[in-house]
Amino acid sequence: MKNAVIFGSSGYTGAEAVRFLLQHPRLRITALSAHSRAGEPYETIYPQFAGHDLPTPQRIEDIDLSDVDVVFSCLPHATGQAAMAKALEQVETVIDVSADFRLRDPEAFAAVYGSEHQYPALLEERVYGLTEYARDSLLGARLVACPGCFPTCSLLALLPGVEADLFTDAPIIVDAKTGVSGAGRKSTQAFGFAEQAEGAHAYAVGNHRHAPEIEQELSLRGYATTISFTPHIVPMNRGMIATCYATLQDGVSVEDVRQRYIERYAEDRFVTVLPEGVVPQTRHVRGSNEARIGVFADRAPGRVIIISVIDNLAKGSSGQAVQNYNLTQGWDEALGLSSTALFP
Amino acid sequence: MKNAVIFGSSGYTGAEAVRFLLQHPRLRITALSAHSRAGEPYETIYPQFAGHDLPTPQRIEDIDLSDVDVVFSCLPHATGQAAMAKALEQVETVIDVSADFRLRDPEAFAAVYGSEHQYPALLEERVYGLTEYARDSLLGARLVACPGCFPTCSLLALLPGVEADLFTDAPIIVDAKTGVSGAGRKSTQAFGFAEQAEGAHAYAVGNHRHAPEIEQELSLRGYATTISFTPHIVPMNRGMIATCYATLQDGVSVEDVRQRYIERYAEDRFVTVLPEGVVPQTRHVRGSNEARIGVFADRAPGRVIIISVIDNLAKGSSGQAVQNYNLTQGWDEALGLSSTALFP
Amino acid sequence: MKNAVIFGSSGYTGAEAVRFLLQHPRLRITALSAHSRAGEPYETIYPQFAGHDLPTPQRIEDIDLSDVDVVFSCLPHATGQAAMAKALEQVETVIDVSADFRLRDPEAFAAVYGSEHQYPALLEERVYGLTEYARDSLLGARLVACPGCFPTCSLLALLPGVEADLFTDAPIIVDAKTGVSGAGRKSTQAFGFAEQAEGAHAYAVGNHRHAPEIEQELSLRGYATTISFTPHIVPMNRGMIATCYATLQDGVSVEDVRQRYIERYAEDRFVTVLPEGVVPQTRHVRGSNEARIGVFADRAPGRVIIISVIDNLAKGSSGQAVQNYNLTQGWDEALGLSSTALFP
Amino acid sequence: MKNAVIFGSSGYTGAEAVRFLLQHPRLRITALSAHSRAGEPYETIYPQFAGHDLPTPQRIEDIDLSDVDVVFSCLPHATGQAAMAKALEQVETVIDVSADFRLRDPEAFAAVYGSEHQYPALLEERVYGLTEYARDSLLGARLVACPGCFPTCSLLALLPGVEADLFTDAPIIVDAKTGVSGAGRKSTQAFGFAEQAEGAHAYAVGNHRHAPEIEQELSLRGYATTISFTPHIVPMNRGMIATCYATLQDGVSVEDVRQRYIERYAEDRFVTVLPEGVVPQTRHVRGSNEARIGVFADRAPGRVIIISVIDNLAKGSSGQAVQNYNLTQGWDEALGLSSTALFP
Repeated sequence: MKNAVIFGSSGYTGAEAVRFLLQHPRLRITALSAHSRAGEPYETIYPQFAGHDLPTPQRIEDIDLSDVDVVFSCLPHATGQAAMAKALEQVETVIDVSADFRLRDPEAFAAVYGSEHQYPALLEERVYGLTEYARDSLLGARLVACPGCFPTCSLLALLPGVEADLFTDAPIIVDAKTGVSGAGRKSTQAFGFAEQAEGAHAYAVGNHRHAPEIEQELSLRGYATTISFTPHIVPMNRGMIATCYATLQDGVSVEDVRQRYIERYAEDRFVTVLPEGVVPQTRHVRGSNEARIGVFADRAPGRVIIISVIDNLAKGSSGQAVQNYNLTQGWDEALGLSSTALFP
Repeated sequence: MKNAVIFGSSGYTGAEAVRFLLQHPRLRITALSAHSRAGEPYETIYPQFAGHDLPTPQRIEDIDLSDVDVVFSCLPHATGQAAMAKALEQVETVIDVSADFRLRDPEAFAAVYGSEHQYPALLEERVYGLTEYARDSLLGARLVACPGCFPTCSLLALLPGVEADLFTDAPIIVDAKTGVSGAGRKSTQAFGFAEQAEGAHAYAVGNHRHAPEIEQELSLRGYATTISFTPHIVPMNRGMIATCYATLQDGVSVEDVRQRYIERYAEDRFVTVLPEGVVPQTRHVRGSNEARIGVFADRAPGRVIIISVIDNLAKGSSGQAVQNYNLTQGWDEALGLSSTALFP
Repeated sequence: MKNAVIFGSSGYTGAEAVRFLLQHPRLRITALSAHSRAGEPYETIYPQFAGHDLPTPQRIEDIDLSDVDVVFSCLPHATGQAAMAKALEQVETVIDVSADFRLRDPEAFAAVYGSEHQYPALLEERVYGLTEYARDSLLGARLVACPGCFPTCSLLALLPGVEADLFTDAPIIVDAKTGVSGAGRKSTQAFGFAEQAEGAHAYAVGNHRHAPEIEQELSLRGYATTISFTPHIVPMNRGMIATCYATLQDGVSVEDVRQRYIERYAEDRFVTVLPEGVVPQTRHVRGSNEARIGVFADRAPGRVIIISVIDNLAKGSSGQAVQNYNLTQGWDEALGLSSTALFP
Repeated sequence: MKNAVIFGSSGYTGAEAVRFLLQHPRLRITALSAHSRAGEPYETIYPQFAGHDLPTPQRIEDIDLSDVDVVFSCLPHATGQAAMAKALEQVETVIDVSADFRLRDPEAFAAVYGSEHQYPALLEERVYGLTEYARDSLLGARLVACPGCFPTCSLLALLPGVEADLFTDAPIIVDAKTGVSGAGRKSTQAFGFAEQAEGAHAYAVGNHRHAPEIEQELSLRGYATTISFTPHIVPMNRGMIATCYATLQDGVSVEDVRQRYIERYAEDRFVTVLPEGVVPQTRHVRGSNEARIGVFADRAPGRVIIISVIDNLAKGSSGQAVQNYNLTQGWDEALGLSSTALFP
């Protein structure tokens, strides 16, 4: 058994990390951090965990990391760099669920997140943990930056085509939809039930922080498109769709694309390419670490529509974090992640 | 007072027509039709109308049209052509909420709806009732084909740019999202509450029936783009978003687009172009006949994102039907449509 | 036309008052108040009202009441007594939607709301505006205390039986369910979408503030029961059910009860007693000022179950407020309240 | 490993049985039955199970039971008696999730379910599997009748008090609320998304089939009350609340009740009695086999309110079925049931 600590356990990604770790046969939660709610029993913060004898959340600075093997950091963006850097001095592995180490270029980080990156050296070292594209690098990695939920969903849909040079560099459009939990556990009027229920809307049109992250990963693979990225929020707790519109290279058919995707993910337990005509639905991955992808012919000739769905808190966040940690240890990547989706 | 009959009152668009007509100062409902539920008090079909003394639904063939001025036909697609044609022999005006007269070309109709059109001569005569683009033709019109919900939402977002030649003919992408009532009042497992709640998905990817209708209207204005159209269903009762991605002609700025849109709709009571940075939300038009449009710069240079929202049952269906009828009579187009949106 | 001002326009009951007044043929909104959001255009607070040219909210102390006829006060409980008292020096009528004047006994107010009542003299004067039981007192009333949403729903279900002495004084049980908007427009984590969706729970078990208000009205009619009152919150925006369990006097049948209820509300436009076997549903009164009541035989002999539904923001709050004001003026009580429920 | 077959795998309780069995370390699914959908891959019926290599559903008569150890029967009520009786000739254990063997008295069955019971001898033998009250009988049981969802939720809340004679025999009131999945996987208009969303209502008032089942279990323990039972349906997929109102015997305090409940369930892994003041919420047991109970003082002196919550498909159905099977085998009752609730 390895000992795990979760930083930022009072947010949704923290609670989701707890949920997965409780099912993990080789990890034991030895401490939790929370900031304003330090000292409260965890089951008053998240009553679903009553009866699990979880440690009471402490302030990070009060957590003894001496016997800890791994820290899952679910802190808000741009608030946990120092804590993670310090933890790395004591623990073997840090899995960062926040955005802090996603952008490799510190200037890009500063531009997107509005503050200087404090540990540019760690940016050199960190592994970008889009699992299905990072397995080789993950083994033994000390610091893993887990991708954002939208980048996870979008890149799983785009990278097989990019790798195989199936798309032209005409702008790719990613029209995304997320459940409300993607906004985090908020105390703001805008995310109140009566504000969000029975309605839908776009947000951050043309300027969402996840677009540069998606482009970073595309350009690393030599692909020079600009992403048009528009997220929408729809009235459900969990779930995310990326509907991606790309232009095919001459001579490439939609069936070519589908076959390529099937091959690319053939060995990947958590990514399924659906048969022709089957539409991926978020409800079928609710609570699970799965991603599902459908490839469709567009009405516009020479274009393809690729749709992927994930659970934003699972494969889009803490599920992928656990999957990544498993791989740093050379374990079966599915440890802790075997429960199927909850439907209905 | 004019006398109105609603064909197909047991569906959601029929009930919505009833709701608007009950608020209409110059229309009186004199008969309702229903097929399998003929003879049942209307308040057992739609209990919200208890106390309004509405006529008991009859079979269409049993309705006496001799004193009727207008028929609102909310029948399922491809089932009401004969009834409407016959009604036109007796009543002054037929407002068709179904798809039967939307496509002007009978061959297109047959291709899209799978049956021969029975009244091609009426297709010549009918007015396509996208109100803000049809006012001149509506006065005195005998047969009005109300646009589909997706075409209404999409065309309101696209036509000002098309009319002013602001877009290139690169394929326009319309990524649309609708509430579940858009599927009609169904008795199918797929639209059960527990099937639809807490999840979202695309459907009819690449082949939805509303795409040819959108293209028909664009091409009538000399615009030769192919529409890439992908509808999604999200877990809310009402509401529709069309997120439209277009490529700007050289020299056209996003601000030019917004100004053009503001001007185009300046006199239109039911269409509002929102200020820069304000995102349209379906909840703010819930139950009302309004459309709201936002114009946004895309990250991809030279591109624009135009987002419009409507209530699929109101402006997307029976609300626009009433608006259209008002204009056939030369009345204020807002009669019966003055109630504001219901939020929360 | 009379001039109306709404105090507390940034809350849900304030917005609902705006919605009804915009439909009112004899009232015109001349000012709105908001505290922290004073100075913001109202359409940034409630975008559904864009295009209605509403006054920009001001602080209460900045509102000129000299030409104002009526104030609808939608302020949070225990914050608006002074403002209402002062307004009464200038305007003819104050309709209070808050709890401040509901409990006639100042000591009861202090016990329940935790602060001394500042205007006990006004408590003597105010009319408790459960409309169907207050018509005689409402004509000419200067200060109307609108009942709470739960008391409205519960008392409509209980008072006909109490008046006619149909129930024993065994404790009456009121098990109530409300939509989330009943909590107000909150900025608290507990009312976030992801916290409330897909779940239900009781709250304030055994000690909700509305129980003494219900008992006050029962005891005024000589009825000495204690109310067992348990509210629950269920994941919908609007709607309220009170399921009431009472013991019948010897010789009283359930059919007797139903007949008595039908008679009692026969002339009441906004209260409907449903036929035997028809269950009231909140969705059928959504957005309307209606209440619906069903009377059912219990399995336990000698007992009756009476179920009533309202929209908590309409008949349970601002709709009843408008109804009450209409009656203070001797107008048709339905002015501004004629729109039917929004379903689906 | 034991071999398990699920009869009725196309309904929600069948799918939930599949979900739990996939997590079960000692059970393997060897066949599934479905009636109208026999021959379809299971993942087209329930796409969430894609990738799990489940057997294709067959008609029951085509399933070879020769190597099967246990049948979980999730067939609709009154349709599976013959199939279960026949299966008992070949398999060791049948766990019935339907209502067919819940009522011990065949006449009661006929009265409540409208058809004669075909196997009254099996009614003598069957064990009523309210797990926490049946452990002794479950070991080695061949036929287990799993309680209905409402009886499970209600009896867990009532039996400790009944056993300890804490309540008088005044009628106990159970006001229950369930999510929509409780109605099963329906193809009926009434359970459509747009019919159920944004609204709530009671149903089967005074005559729900689960009331006699609750009374059967109470009377078996010498308790002669009549249950007043009113179920409501609220717009969520999963979750159930029973709010129970009982009268205390003289000298019994609410604190006595709470202590008794805490003691009664102290050793029960899946039943938690919450601390004073903590309200049970359905969302905190979503997807898990847990029940949570809160004990509250009523405002009416001498009365107590006991509230319990479960997931209707888990502890209320297929979760309890697995728990029961585990106990028939002498296994840890939690096998297959260890995943925590999914929140948010």
